[in-house]
Amino acid sequence: MAANLDKIMKPKSIAVIGASTKDHTIGSDLMKRLEEYKFNGKIYPVNPKGGIIQGLQAYQKVTDIPDEIDLAIIVVNAKFVLSTIDQCHEKGIKGLCIITAGFKETGKEGAELERQLLEKVKEYGMRCVGPNCLGVVNTKPDIRMDGCFAESLPERGHIGFVSQSGALGGGILNILKDLNLGFAQFISIGNQADVNAETALEYWENEDDVQQILLYMESIQDPSNFRKLATRVSKKKPILALKAGRSAAGASAASSHTGSLAGADKAAAALLKQSGVIREFSLQNLFETAKVFANCPIPKGDRVAIITNSGGPGIMATDAVSEYGMHMAKISDATKEKLRSFLPSAASVKNPIDMIASAPIEHYKQTLETVIADDNVDMIICIYLPFLGLKDIDVAKALMEIKAEHPEKPVIGVFMTKNEFFTKLSDMDVNIPFFMYAEQAADGLNRLNQQRLWMERSEGKIPVYDVDRAKVESIIKKAIKDGRAQLTTLESIDVLNAYGIRACKYGLATNEEEVVNLGNSIGYPVVMKMTSKTTSHKTDVGGVVVNIKNEEQLRKEYKALLARLEEKGLLEGLEGVIIQEMVKGNREMVCGIATDPQYGPMMMFGLGGVFVEVMKDVTFRIAPLTDMDAEEMIKSVKAYKLLEGARGTKPAQIDQIKETLLRLSQLVNDYKFIDELDINPLLISETTGEGIAVDGRIKVRMDEAKEALGCSEMCATCGAC
Amino acid sequence: MAANLDKIMKPKSIAVIGASTKDHTIGSDLMKRLEEYKFNGKIYPVNPKGGIIQGLQAYQKVTDIPDEIDLAIIVVNAKFVLSTIDQCHEKGIKGLCIITAGFKETGKEGAELERQLLEKVKEYGMRCVGPNCLGVVNTKPDIRMDGCFAESLPERGHIGFVSQSGALGGGILNILKDLNLGFAQFISIGNQADVNAETALEYWENEDDVQQILLYMESIQDPSNFRKLATRVSKKKPILALKAGRSAAGASAASSHTGSLAGADKAAAALLKQSGVIREFSLQNLFETAKVFANCPIPKGDRVAIITNSGGPGIMATDAVSEYGMHMAKISDATKEKLRSFLPSAASVKNPIDMIASAPIEHYKQTLETVIADDNVDMIICIYLPFLGLKDIDVAKALMEIKAEHPEKPVIGVFMTKNEFFTKLSDMDVNIPFFMYAEQAADGLNRLNQQRLWMERSEGKIPVYDVDRAKVESIIKKAIKDGRAQLTTLESIDVLNAYGIRACKYGLATNEEEVVNLGNSIGYPVVMKMTSKTTSHKTDVGGVVVNIKNEEQLRKEYKALLARLEEKGLLEGLEGVIIQEMVKGNREMVCGIATDPQYGPMMMFGLGGVFVEVMKDVTFRIAPLTDMDAEEMIKSVKAYKLLEGARGTKPAQIDQIKETLLRLSQLVNDYKFIDELDINPLLISETTGEGIAVDGRIKVRMDEAKEALGCSEMCATCGAC
Repeated sequence: MAANLDKIMKPKSIAVIGASTKDHTIGSDLMKRLEEYKFNGKIYPVNPKGGIIQGLQAYQKVTDIPDEIDLAIIVVNAKFVLSTIDQCHEKGIKGLCIITAGFKETGKEGAELERQLLEKVKEYGMRCVGPNCLGVVNTKPDIRMDGCFAESLPERGHIGFVSQSGALGGGILNILKDLNLGFAQFISIGNQADVNAETALEYWENEDDVQQILLYMESIQDPSNFRKLATRVSKKKPILALKAGRSAAGASAASSHTGSLAGADKAAAALLKQSGVIREFSLQNLFETAKVFANCPIPKGDRVAIITNSGGPGIMATDAVSEYGMHMAKISDATKEKLRSFLPSAASVKNPIDMIASAPIEHYKQTLETVIADDNVDMIICIYLPFLGLKDIDVAKALMEIKAEHPEKPVIGVFMTKNEFFTKLSDMDVNIPFFMYAEQAADGLNRLNQQRLWMERSEGKIPVYDVDRAKVESIIKKAIKDGRAQLTTLESIDVLNAYGIRACKYGLATNEEEVVNLGNSIGYPVVMKMTSKTTSHKTDVGGVVVNIKNEEQLRKEYKALLARLEEKGLLEGLEGVIIQEMVKGNREMVCGIATDPQYGPMMMFGLGGVFVEVMKDVTFRIAPLTDMDAEEMIKSVKAYKLLEGARGTKPAQIDQIKETLLRLSQLVNDYKFIDELDINPLLISETTGEGIAVDGRIKVRMDEAKEALGCSEMCATCGAC
Repeated sequence: MAANLDKIMKPKSIAVIGASTKDHTIGSDLMKRLEEYKFNGKIYPVNPKGGIIQGLQAYQKVTDIPDEIDLAIIVVNAKFVLSTIDQCHEKGIKGLCIITAGFKETGKEGAELERQLLEKVKEYGMRCVGPNCLGVVNTKPDIRMDGCFAESLPERGHIGFVSQSGALGGGILNILKDLNLGFAQFISIGNQADVNAETALEYWENEDDVQQILLYMESIQDPSNFRKLATRVSKKKPILALKAGRSAAGASAASSHTGSLAGADKAAAALLKQSGVIREFSLQNLFETAKVFANCPIPKGDRVAIITNSGGPGIMATDAVSEYGMHMAKISDATKEKLRSFLPSAASVKNPIDMIASAPIEHYKQTLETVIADDNVDMIICIYLPFLGLKDIDVAKALMEIKAEHPEKPVIGVFMTKNEFFTKLSDMDVNIPFFMYAEQAADGLNRLNQQRLWMERSEGKIPVYDVDRAKVESIIKKAIKDGRAQLTTLESIDVLNAYGIRACKYGLATNEEEVVNLGNSIGYPVVMKMTSKTTSHKTDVGGVVVNIKNEEQLRKEYKALLARLEEKGLLEGLEGVIIQEMVKGNREMVCGIATDPQYGPMMMFGLGGVFVEVMKDVTFRIAPLTDMDAEEMIKSVKAYKLLEGARGTKPAQIDQIKETLLRLSQLVNDYKFIDELDINPLLISETTGEGIAVDGRIKVRMDEAKEALGCSEMCATCGAC
């Protein structure tokens, strides 16, 4: 069932429970704002004392109201909130917005109160925004609800905005207004007991009035649901997110602030990327991007033309465009010829097109009109520097005229002029976003292009492979029985094998015949490693012999090992030797999973070996992976060039590595109690180009594993016991 | 002799040659601006027609002026410029500012005209700004010269600003004014025939009125002089630079724009870093940083305290501070106690200090005053979000009051409020920079900290090592004689040896006895490599044998090689075998030089082997290196952790590697005709931790080398001939 917040966001009638006549109280401010913004429905103040509030008859109880109520905005003291919800239920109200603070954010007792609150909301089949929030707003002309106590009245537009911080939400509404950025709906989710960012995404998915979604988040409540919804919704409209608390210091501030556990930033970053959410790292960037999406269509490609009346900013814009990996458009010969027909000879008709300082308004118009029609051009930056005799606002109007006739391509203006210009603009209807600096324009185009690529990107599938679950479960049960959370290397390799992951072939042998049989079946060259209960430093006693090329040599080395051990009196503890396939390759990758307490299993892939911590050339995605995710992971690390076969090495089997990641993803998705899993190295074979797990490490969360596998320490259901 | 621009920047009298009564001409506008800004000296318009211009008697020729003239501002047509300079000389004028365009920027003929112009300027002992520029400004009250035709009158302040782009310079002046950023002096260097950024740096070094220097550059004219000057001046006052043309596309636009060759960005980046110049990548950042330097002292450390009335922005500021690697200050217990004495219990006295939404102005004052006194705090960010009842401008004034009493620590304000606030501020005298967003404040603190670190950093020395130049020259002369620009590997290694760079030991042997003697003198293990005129693929015939452990094995392998070659009929071409020290190590670094056409030899250091192009973990500096440069190069690559001995490897000899870089720097500085030099790998020995050049490649620029070494193809002076 899709989230339906109509009762809250499109109410026909609102009861303000805790409405007040006392100045500078929320109960009074709220009433004023609802009236002032001319709410298109009925407002019913509720106050135990009754009386007249904002010219309206106040009811002593919500149940006293004679008409039907869609939304109750609650501002009573926290201790009365539960009983107020009961009364709302009695009255048949289905929408709540609880502004009252004093819940989870205050500690244990508050958290318990919030738990009870949510229980009632669920039981009564209500939806609830808050508690501890700033309120809700809908600017649609047939609604006009300002149920929020921010400083300024809302500005009409088409942004849907969710804020986890009430105060910041208010600050943002102020700034949006200044930037001439209007919004359609605003939800201050507060402690997000019921309604959260995910609910809003789902609700706005098919809400035409909301054309882009802005999120300010300090934590993501249900990452898996967020991913599902955001992935779908972002294909229809851009979702921009500012996720605060990304540094360790910031996350600790975030957690003390909202009482919610902020997930590690790597996991959040992966989740947002996989979900097609455009992540911004500052409010300024968030707003600038919103301004671009509010005034530009999604482009058809990434070829940028720059039109300027001054060289310097043209260079700076070119720098910025190139640094984003977008392309400078090749202006067609026809376009160049046309430009030459009216521009002075000193002008440059190559991209950046420099009309030179003398360019009159007419040249701006003609040049934009000519360039916008060029099929080689997808997006345009138009730069204006003030020279004597030309008014910035006139140039802007001229550009907007042309743009109005050609709405199909994004145009961004860079006007390096006085602040007044932007103030003037904020009172006008614009169809071009204007910025002061070239870099802001390039940023904006880059975001448009990012959204284009995401919308064009296939959704991807999560494949399901045929695997040997029984094998895995028996291995893990055995470890549980032994009281080991950490599987041995051999057990780990066996688990990987059971999931069809190409691991190094091996076997354990306890006598010469077994040794030789193993060597012959694995194929030479092999590695021989002793395994002993008493000798932990294998290499000190020559316990690891590499590159054994044939049966004869294997026999010889085995005998020599036994002799060495006997000489040192270490033969006693010997359990046997592991004969292992010797994989040749000098490209060491790493893959595995780490578990984030909030986001669940997170996959990692990148450059392995000694470089893993030094170069940090690794990438993360939340499991389960789609095939697209796996492919993007592989291609996004710098070491991908090594996989492709840089410097004469054999190209790696990218598809096989991709499958390795996908099978691994299936494994950790099937067994959520796997806490850590490392394949390091995943060696790229110089012979076949395969990625081969040469070493593996798996650790489980014991209690969860026991529960999931249905085994207790006393049980006898497991073959391994 | 220090650059003296007094005649241009502090003239007592100015002749405007080309002054005009015709509206909207530069000759008219300039006269108006000089008058309007109330130039504190005498103005003499010069126009062949004479008459009255701006109420002043115009002279037909500059020589007609009865008084002494310090500065001539020239706006006549390009074809009259040379004769005008002659007249200025006749008049005894030593300062010129040539606004006239039509020189180098227009092509070959213009360049020739500019060459002649410069010749005259030099001959006459003049200094000249321009041609093709916007003019010069000095706002000092006893000067008040606006000799520039930008849109607005200059704003008084203490920035020295040099712009290479006239138009952009004008745009920037507009914006500076809007940002309430005043400047002391402005020089539009235009084609920089004579006066350039370097001249300005030198001139402003001891000019107290200029407290920080801003540069907009598209190219650096004399990199080595720039480095010398900037390194010195930046220790006294911050230098901020915006260097455009950093992408390949941007650089091509830059070069078509100014007719000057834009150096590769890597070289420019290295040069600016070595010179202590703070590089900004957008005008916005340039201005924001300037605003911070204009209102903040240099801090004593990097410990930041954040004071806020709202959690969200506190988290965002914490994120930004941490991401710059600065530290969140640990608030002292005494400070905490004091804060608790007046803040409400819901407030947080840990950093970030959250006074909560109810904080009145008094709390802002008391909190700032308390925190500023804490010895654990070096810098402060003060955040304000608007809540009902508190006026932003009042809060700002309160903070500035406290700040005035404690000027010793930087304080930056983050006011997430309406634009009006900033407009109001721009008419006030401020002592705190205010921004809208937390990230801008963190940016600013980071720049202050960067300047602190630079000012504290030792200058470093360029050491001179005792080297064998004769050896190097004889090797290169031999290559020249052979017509080879590229030295052989052995020659390259010999050159490195001659400069005391630890290279792999080796020798060439042509018979068994020589082979064995070499092996014994180098020490085992060794590598044996055949060298042959006829066989290029050494490995195909087993021509490379590694890890030869003793004399016996060496003899055996040598005989076996001869036998293999004889069998294949390849013995004929054999020149001998190279016996080479076998260096064991798995850490491969790279170092070397590349020559930038404009910046000269540029040193590189970083992670080598197959990773060099993939990971690009390398850093660059312009040669010659100081010891500080070399050390910073080594420490700035990610692979430094590997050198330190990550994952149980032997720590590398950092000092020895540093010396390698310094000796290399001396080599390429001594022989500027070395075009390319690569040591890849510089293998880190697992035994000793030394960096050892295992392979070397040197290429010279033949013609320059011949000239420098004084050898012609026919000469007989060289021992190698």
